[in-house]
Amino acid sequence: MLTFRLRLLLAGACLAAMPAAARPAAPTPTITAPTITAVTPATKTAPIARIDPTFWWVGMKNPKLQLLVHGPGIATAVAELRAYAGVTLDGVQKLESPNYLLLNLTISPTAKPGKLQLEFKGAKKFSYAYELKERTTPGDKSKVQGLSQQDLIYFLMPDRFSNGDSKNDYLATMRAPKVARDSMYSRHGGDLKGIENHFDYFKQLGVTALWMTPVVENNMPKASYHGYALTDYYNTDRRYGTTEEYKQFVDHAHQNGLKVVHDVVLNHMGSGNYLFLDQPAADWFNQWPRFTRSNYNASALNDPYGSELDRKLYNQGWFDTTMPDVNQRNPLVATYLIQNFLWWVEYTGLDAYRIDTYPYSDPNFLMQWGQALNDEFPNLFKFGEAWVGSTAQQAFFARNIFQPVDGFKSNLESVFDFQSTFALYDALKGEQPNLNKLYEAVQGDWMYEDASRNVTFLDNHDMSRFYSVIGEDFAKYKMGLAWLLTMRGIPQLYYGTEVLMKNFSNPDGLVRADFPGGFSGDALNYFKARPGQPGEAFEYVRKLANYRKDHAFLHSGKLMQFIPQDNVYTYFRYSPTGTVMVMLNGNKEPKTVDGTRFAERTGDFSSGMEVTTGAALADLKSFTIPGKTAWVVELR
Amino acid sequence: MLTFRLRLLLAGACLAAMPAAARPAAPTPTITAPTITAVTPATKTAPIARIDPTFWWVGMKNPKLQLLVHGPGIATAVAELRAYAGVTLDGVQKLESPNYLLLNLTISPTAKPGKLQLEFKGAKKFSYAYELKERTTPGDKSKVQGLSQQDLIYFLMPDRFSNGDSKNDYLATMRAPKVARDSMYSRHGGDLKGIENHFDYFKQLGVTALWMTPVVENNMPKASYHGYALTDYYNTDRRYGTTEEYKQFVDHAHQNGLKVVHDVVLNHMGSGNYLFLDQPAADWFNQWPRFTRSNYNASALNDPYGSELDRKLYNQGWFDTTMPDVNQRNPLVATYLIQNFLWWVEYTGLDAYRIDTYPYSDPNFLMQWGQALNDEFPNLFKFGEAWVGSTAQQAFFARNIFQPVDGFKSNLESVFDFQSTFALYDALKGEQPNLNKLYEAVQGDWMYEDASRNVTFLDNHDMSRFYSVIGEDFAKYKMGLAWLLTMRGIPQLYYGTEVLMKNFSNPDGLVRADFPGGFSGDALNYFKARPGQPGEAFEYVRKLANYRKDHAFLHSGKLMQFIPQDNVYTYFRYSPTGTVMVMLNGNKEPKTVDGTRFAERTGDFSSGMEVTTGAALADLKSFTIPGKTAWVVELR
Repeated sequence: MLTFRLRLLLAGACLAAMPAAARPAAPTPTITAPTITAVTPATKTAPIARIDPTFWWVGMKNPKLQLLVHGPGIATAVAELRAYAGVTLDGVQKLESPNYLLLNLTISPTAKPGKLQLEFKGAKKFSYAYELKERTTPGDKSKVQGLSQQDLIYFLMPDRFSNGDSKNDYLATMRAPKVARDSMYSRHGGDLKGIENHFDYFKQLGVTALWMTPVVENNMPKASYHGYALTDYYNTDRRYGTTEEYKQFVDHAHQNGLKVVHDVVLNHMGSGNYLFLDQPAADWFNQWPRFTRSNYNASALNDPYGSELDRKLYNQGWFDTTMPDVNQRNPLVATYLIQNFLWWVEYTGLDAYRIDTYPYSDPNFLMQWGQALNDEFPNLFKFGEAWVGSTAQQAFFARNIFQPVDGFKSNLESVFDFQSTFALYDALKGEQPNLNKLYEAVQGDWMYEDASRNVTFLDNHDMSRFYSVIGEDFAKYKMGLAWLLTMRGIPQLYYGTEVLMKNFSNPDGLVRADFPGGFSGDALNYFKARPGQPGEAFEYVRKLANYRKDHAFLHSGKLMQFIPQDNVYTYFRYSPTGTVMVMLNGNKEPKTVDGTRFAERTGDFSSGMEVTTGAALADLKSFTIPGKTAWVVELR
Repeated sequence: MLTFRLRLLLAGACLAAMPAAARPAAPTPTITAPTITAVTPATKTAPIARIDPTFWWVGMKNPKLQLLVHGPGIATAVAELRAYAGVTLDGVQKLESPNYLLLNLTISPTAKPGKLQLEFKGAKKFSYAYELKERTTPGDKSKVQGLSQQDLIYFLMPDRFSNGDSKNDYLATMRAPKVARDSMYSRHGGDLKGIENHFDYFKQLGVTALWMTPVVENNMPKASYHGYALTDYYNTDRRYGTTEEYKQFVDHAHQNGLKVVHDVVLNHMGSGNYLFLDQPAADWFNQWPRFTRSNYNASALNDPYGSELDRKLYNQGWFDTTMPDVNQRNPLVATYLIQNFLWWVEYTGLDAYRIDTYPYSDPNFLMQWGQALNDEFPNLFKFGEAWVGSTAQQAFFARNIFQPVDGFKSNLESVFDFQSTFALYDALKGEQPNLNKLYEAVQGDWMYEDASRNVTFLDNHDMSRFYSVIGEDFAKYKMGLAWLLTMRGIPQLYYGTEVLMKNFSNPDGLVRADFPGGFSGDALNYFKARPGQPGEAFEYVRKLANYRKDHAFLHSGKLMQFIPQDNVYTYFRYSPTGTVMVMLNGNKEPKTVDGTRFAERTGDFSSGMEVTTGAALADLKSFTIPGKTAWVVELR
């Protein structure tokens, strides 16, 4: 019953990234009357409202720094830098708006930490102490750890996971109304403290990394909980915790053996952002005569026969009335964004970026952004959401073996492996799972530079929950989880999948329900007790995740797969330290398997042990696997 | 009701090339007892049964020639070349079998046509006059013309099209029984003369090229009609006409403005081939301890995680008991095959090779074979059958933008565009055609060096006929034909599709029915009269094919497509000489279209004319297209 517009608003930044085929109701990019959501601007009284980046560091590899100074009428001021050893002000640049000035600095490698005195002389005269800090990430191995197949990412929505601090649930200075846990579109009150309270839960489960939907400020009147409408690039949303608390959160996570994935949005912002309310220049945004929606179809980007219009609609159309599209072709905007994403890494020591709606950004900007981060933080792991329709199109947005297309060659380490997820759905839907698709899903890895970096998953906040997709069939659930936790790639678990949370993405919001026990008064508390099948599910995930964690051949070992026969799909993860055989029987009936076919991998072994049950497999040459079963067999 | 084995036998070489997903009943490559079909060897009395190539030319770019001499006990003879200016015998090589000798010759550019005297001295002494001819292809523009988007290929099975010479229907010296037109597995008597009798039919229809299933000898006891079990690489099947008559056929076709596509098989031969009955050496074939079938899954070839076994089964498993797999990794075999395919081009002046089961061949051999042909005949067009499951996998077997994978980088001009055919089926099946797939089908062209060389088609001898696939819906039929004849690529029409021939590929053979009127006594003669809807269909194809033929923008123009909206798919073919707008409405209902969206292509025009009906389109800015309709509109 919901209109697509509403769906979008609710589903947030990511939903519309899906290809036309997958989208529940493919939208026609109708051109409607301008309906840009009005948001009250923040009051500006101080001569300088802010300078972005809010501070910086000495010793960055790139000595250049561009400061965006925002203040009423600031452009009329003459800006100067009081002498500071190793730092020069190379130039000052005005923009279309009188309320902005750009200062271009060079910070030499010899510069020391301290405060730059920026002097502004105009109608009034004033100065601003701009801080240059000492870097903390270099040499600290607990920071910027990156991700690898050793990890299991737990993905949660901070507003919906657990409320650890009731004082920050509602802030009168922000635009959203009070929490309303009975509404899927309102804030529920979850926060960083709530997540931190459950670090033990993650560790017990075998999780090694946390990915949260954006924690950066989303000061929007509606649906701000999803986090994809940034209103301040340099501050967290205080309803989750302060910026400083987020930095501490990352530290604590690291101390607990948990990495942190920061969710970033490059191509759009929230219409409540000060940069939109008081625009530096018209060309900071992709402007249209009337509000014009993206066509949400990444095919337009590299279609050799595509029209200019379709491509422009894709890259420059707006995500929604409340999410203006940022003009990354403007080098000043590109610099602003790049600096911001360098800033968060150095400030917090976060380990990875998950990039929302990756292909919607300008292709040249993406290369530039990736290069700048690679140069400064080679260990930072970056993976993008490219919700497209084929393996080739998905590989196009990761490092791959293609020659550049229209000058674009992705430098992104990793993408979400939507194609293998789709294949899993295709495989497990229906009466009798058909596993050929699972084999084909990774066969296409020849197109990647290294597909073992792909992030695999069963579901996320924009998709129907896996347990519902497979008809709440617990046997299929175990097959899916066994596949996720043993297949190549970096697995991601959506919060609650481990305790059989369910629901469909349509109508919206239901797949973003609160985690049972995360909020005071919850009837069920799955952190403490998991009676029935949710407990069985949790145990299954816990066992496999910890087995994966403890066995190097599941994260640094090789993969070998055999063409499915009789709807039985078999693959091996192996290294000199060990071998595990994973066998999925898609038939309802048991199947007797001729194991001699796998001699390339089983040759050195005589028996095996199924990891989740402890059952012995006495004879590797011939055996019978029960119907609808996943075996994870350590060979001995 | 037929077993898969039987299906294979009937369907011939090509059927099993389809991916597991598309195959009606995915076969398990069971290892069965050896059942290699016994065929009586030809009598060998002459000291030299034959020498392959049967003759050669002076002035080839590659001066090397390797002669395979076959004769009882020939290996014991000492071979010498009587002095011949410009020709040297560099070496003589024995094989495992005493009945073969290899002679390695060098033919310098100065050598003149004539007869080499090869002397053999052993128990007996004898000589053999080996002919070196003058080349005819260089400088003759009617020969080796290649193919391009200017062409429309008509694909037929010579046994099933028309019987022009009843004397060659049955030859007692060959292994197959007499013709039996009531059996789909028997020979029906069609021949080259029958095809030639209908050159006017092709010309009337707008056809510019003929592709016939292999005309080379298939002296097999069963199902020899399909042609994919070669028993003599250097002779045509006499039931179609002699080798010399085939050469004349090519000449006559050229004189009539028709090109000839020769169908070749590289990876297997018929078990009745003399090379199999009296094997030069065991390593001329891919040998297995027991008969071992291919797994028919090209995914094994470039699966980065594939097992050695699956890859070997794919490349070296046998196509069928009657079709031994040739070991192309043996350089002597590679040379034999390469010379043979140079020979047919120079001998007949044929224009293109269609390569059966392309990916089944050894990848290195394929590169070598392609290079040799490119070097000698740069105008020759080659397109391969790669019946695989994705655009990327299909592009892998054509010239593409991929870095080499395991050392393989295809040098093939073109492949059949199975993916766009599958997309067309997906689009047109069901109550309401959904045209998004058609857009996506060519979007993936970014992976090709030049996908406009792809051969597009609606059906072929291994697939259900298009008219049956779409439920005998004439509106959809016209949509499919309009797409085929206006989309980028080189269109191929399967015989009879133009007169609504129908049937499903299962059970076998029905899609290979005789063309009505091709055989004496036929109740219907579609060459002469086409009453009812078949006549309407013929007229529709004729109009569009001739329109295509006469308008350069449909073969050398560019393509621009727009993302489908409201299930209306629109694309343009255009050049400075003209523009055609093709619009397909997938809805049952009429749709009003906002044409201003296409301004990039319609800007210079004010109206249009629908090519098949002559109807005017007065206003390009807004118009209504009827339901389930294809418009081909020339803009004015």
